[in-house]
Order: sequence, then C-alpha cells, then structure tokens
Amino acid sequence: MKALRLTDDGVRVSEVPVPEPGPGEALVRVLRSGICNTDVELARGYMHFRGTLGHEFCGVVERAADRSLEGRRVAGEINLACGECAACRGGERAHCPNRTVLGILGKDGAHAQFVALPERNLHAVPESIAIEAATLVEPVAACCRILEQRPIAAGERVVVVGDGKLAFLAAQVLRTATPRVSVLGKHEVKLEAFRALGFEAASSGGEAGRADVVVECSGSPSGLVAALAAVRPLGTIVLKTTCARPVTLDTSRVVVNEVTVIGSRCGPFDRAIELLSRAEVVVEPLIDETIPLSRGVEVLARAQAPGVRKILIDPAG
Amino acid sequence: MKALRLTDDGVRVSEVPVPEPGPGEALVRVLRSGICNTDVELARGYMHFRGTLGHEFCGVVERAADRSLEGRRVAGEINLACGECAACRGGERAHCPNRTVLGILGKDGAHAQFVALPERNLHAVPESIAIEAATLVEPVAACCRILEQRPIAAGERVVVVGDGKLAFLAAQVLRTATPRVSVLGKHEVKLEAFRALGFEAASSGGEAGRADVVVECSGSPSGLVAALAAVRPLGTIVLKTTCARPVTLDTSRVVVNEVTVIGSRCGPFDRAIELLSRAEVVVEPLIDETIPLSRGVEVLARAQAPGVRKILIDPAG
Repeated sequence: MKALRLTDDGVRVSEVPVPEPGPGEALVRVLRSGICNTDVELARGYMHFRGTLGHEFCGVVERAADRSLEGRRVAGEINLACGECAACRGGERAHCPNRTVLGILGKDGAHAQFVALPERNLHAVPESIAIEAATLVEPVAACCRILEQRPIAAGERVVVVGDGKLAFLAAQVLRTATPRVSVLGKHEVKLEAFRALGFEAASSGGEAGRADVVVECSGSPSGLVAALAAVRPLGTIVLKTTCARPVTLDTSRVVVNEVTVIGSRCGPFDRAIELLSRAEVVVEPLIDETIPLSRGVEVLARAQAPGVRKILIDPAG
Repeated sequence: MKALRLTDDGVRVSEVPVPEPGPGEALVRVLRSGICNTDVELARGYMHFRGTLGHEFCGVVERAADRSLEGRRVAGEINLACGECAACRGGERAHCPNRTVLGILGKDGAHAQFVALPERNLHAVPESIAIEAATLVEPVAACCRILEQRPIAAGERVVVVGDGKLAFLAAQVLRTATPRVSVLGKHEVKLEAFRALGFEAASSGGEAGRADVVVECSGSPSGLVAALAAVRPLGTIVLKTTCARPVTLDTSRVVVNEVTVIGSRCGPFDRAIELLSRAEVVVEPLIDETIPLSRGVEVLARAQAPGVRKILIDPAG
C-alpha cells in the first residue's frame, strides 16, 4: 500500500506492506486523513518521529475480531495505552507512560491506505456526518477536552487566541458552553470565517484582562503573551497547541494575578461525534481541498504556506 | 519617625511624619519587620515602587476606631481593597483592581516605626507566638494559600523546588496535608536545615516525573524547568515566587502531559497564625539576626548576599 512516511531523508510517499493488526487491533481502510500542524512540526523534528504520519482520519473497518465492527465507518483515538500500568488502571490511559501514539510516537499513522488500531480506540461515525467532518473527529475531540478540564458556565467570557484550524473548531466547541466566545487573531481573511459563524473576531482587544478563560490555539510564542493580556485575575489559560520553540512567560503576572495555566491534549470522541452530528461544529469552511495520497509530499509542504487551511488526503488516489 | 524608603536615588533611611490613619485605618507601632526577597526585587525596579518598603511585620495597635484593638499585638494583611468593585463584591479582595499593597504598590510599608492599615486587615497574634514567628505570619499565610488553591490529599507526593526562606515555610505548611514532601535545592547548607526538620532534601532527584504537586519557590528561571521535570502527567505546579527575569517554558511538555500551572500569592492569616501557634511551622532556623532600622540600607544590601536567610528589622533601634 502507499503511505506518507517521515524518514531520515525527509518525507516520502512509499510502498509498504499493509499493516498486520496486533492482538485486539482492527484493520481499517482509510477513507480520508487530515493534515494537522503537528504533522508539520513532526517533519521539522518534533518528537523525533519516524514512520507513517497522520493521526486525523476516518475509515471503514476491514477486519476485526469483533465482526460487528466490520464495514462500519469509524474514527480512531490516537493513544495506544498498555492497559496495565498505574496510569491505565487509574483511568488515565492518555497518559500511559508506555503508550504509542498514532502517527506521532512509535506507531504508524493514517496518511496511508490502511491503518491498524485497537478496536477499543474505534468510534462509529454515523453516515449522516459528511466525510470531511468525520475526518476531523480527532481535533474536535481535542477541543472537547477543554470543557472536561475547565467546565465553563453560560455567562463566562471566553477568548480564543489564534485564527487557525484548531481555533476554528475550539471556538465552536466552546460556544456550546457559553455564548460569549470571541476570537483574537492576526489574519483578516481567517477572522472573516469566524464572523461568518457569528463570532466576534478581531486582531486586538480580546477582553483585555476580563476573560474568564482564554484558549491558546495560535501555536505561536506570542500567543501566550496575548493570552496573559486577555485573562482576568484568577482566570484560566488553556494551552492547546504545542510550539516547538520555547515560550517566554512573564511568571510575575501569572503569580500576582493567580492565573491558572492548563495544558490540554486529547479528548472524548463520543462528544465530538455528537457535536458534529448536530452541526454544532461545522468544518466545511476549513477545508481547502482533498488531494491524492500520491501527492502527499507536496501536500505537507503546501500545508505550511500562509493562508492554507485544512488539506485532506484521499488515500485511494 | 524613621523609615526605610525606596527613592529615585535608591534606598535611604529617612525621617518622615508618623502616618495619619485614613478612615477605617488603625495606627500600628511596628515591633519587627522582615526583609523579603520581594523587597530586594522592588529595590531593583520591580513594580516601580517608591515609598517605605516592608510588608512582613508584627506590631501593637496604637490607635484604632475599634478601641478593643488598642494594645493588641497584630499582623496585617497587605492588600488594601476598595471594597466596592466587582472583584471586592465577588469576594476576591486580593485581586481588587483598585488595590494598594503595603510596601509594594501605592502604600507605605512596615520597615518603619509606625504603619497605618485598615482595621479589617489586622489579625491578633497570641503572645504565645514568639516575636520572630509573629513577624512572618504574612509569608506563612502566602504558603497556606497553596492548599486553598490545590487541596492536597494525605498520600500525595509533593516536591518543593528551592531551599530559601519561602521554601522553608512552604515545606512545613505542605506537610500539614501530606507526609510526602521533599525538597529540591542547590545549597547544601540550606538543605541541611530542611533535613533537621525531617524532610528529604537533595540537589537532584525530586521524584522525576512522579510528583502530584510541585511548588516552585526558587525565584530562579531554572526553577520552573526543575518543576516540569518533577511533576507527573496531570500534575500541578504552583508558582509561589515572582521572578523579575522572564522565564522560558517548554509548553509542549505542559500540553502533552496536561500539567496545570497555578500562580499563587497571598493567603489566609488565621490559618497561618494557627499553624505557628501549634509550632507546626517553625521559623527560628531561618532567622539570621535582628538589626536596628537605622542600619536598614546595609540590611537590604546584605539580604542579597549568598547564604543569608531572614533578617529582621527592629524599628526601635
């Protein structure tokens, strides 16, 4: 099968064997996969990953021990936990120290024609959800994680810092909790897409010390500075994006204002599927195009160009 | 009266009028004040403060509208809130945007023979508490704040980063919640003082990714790096010290491990007085010497020398 792989010589589309599912794993034929900023960061050296990239996808179960899964359209959780350590026993499987992570850490990913994943990682995605939305269940779930970590009440003021793909999904997820979600970004064209969904979106302002919760989605070192300016005393900053560059923090502001900063990673797929099925989160304005896997190297380069949003890969191509 | 003042020309001991208490304020004769690292930072330019330094003190009420206060030995909360804004009405007086702060922001402090403070800021300190301990109610209260923000269960592992004055108080306060408190410091002589109180104290180790809670008390940019290495996934780092220099943070570690970072400032005086009265927190090993106010300039310089711990000022001298 074809796969988009990160090698010592850079990114390549290679012919590799179809993965052989391990115990408890299903074989999934990939319908679409999404290019994430993390793919770009991995290609730049983050996590020192080698193997098939890709952790956002939807597919059809080709073969599974649980035969009822076969033929189902699914999305897949990306953390493969050992199930036996203290973290797993304590219900913290996403933090299993022995875990592998799909397309990120020790596990071949989904920019390929097939992917193998534990059956327990798979979530059925109703056919009523368009294939583009089904492909983005994983990042929507990551945004739902915010509300697990910091429940938001209906009257609270939330600022999303950043106007990229994750910000677009996060703002919609956060609006399910409170109507007072505004967006602080740098790109007028992207901000316009937020306004089209009814968000206040601007390149300055951002509540200026009045936000109860600020969600940093910019992936830029300046994002945390903007978040600190927006958050109120005793407020919360949620960090959603990893930034390969170190970030400089004015800790005296964190201390004096007793701000809470929470790192936030993977989230609940069931909730994401629910929001997508109700169209409380829409993804269509994000999708630039769908490109065949054979052009994967070009896609990864293009994903870094200014103004490019979400590119999907069609592995059948 | 004499006062240790920060002026445009540096630190001076000056003769100034006894403060005239405003409405609701009491006049307090200072018995002792303590030199804090924040005084040193203020002298270096932090907060651009000008006026009488000093925010750790104990004294005797000389004059008050509430006559029952007169003659009482007291310590004083340092935030002077307006009492009328949304923060004050919401019970967040320490975060009143209109506040002044004793010896730190717009309010003359306690390195002086007299200080004026709102009566509601004063807390009686029993005579059973030695004068040195009574002087340090404020920093002990700041350490008690940690347990308000992040309640700690008896089995949890806590690491204190730093071996200075605040670390010494914080470790003892934290041990009232869990026996598993260890200290990560850099100075063998100081670490020995922790060991004398029964703490594990070392210059390396520090639970290495297993601590439930890490309390950063070092005031050094490297402290947060050490804290991130010590904390477990889903664990909490509490920042207790302000550092004038910006701190570089590996946010990807915060995000991937979903670490919570909480800034922490002022705390409950009643709880601090309770812990000091029961000798659950002892301060004696911290006290280097008590020096007359007339030698205040020298004291502030000396407080920055390596190995120097807490110096108290006797304003009668």
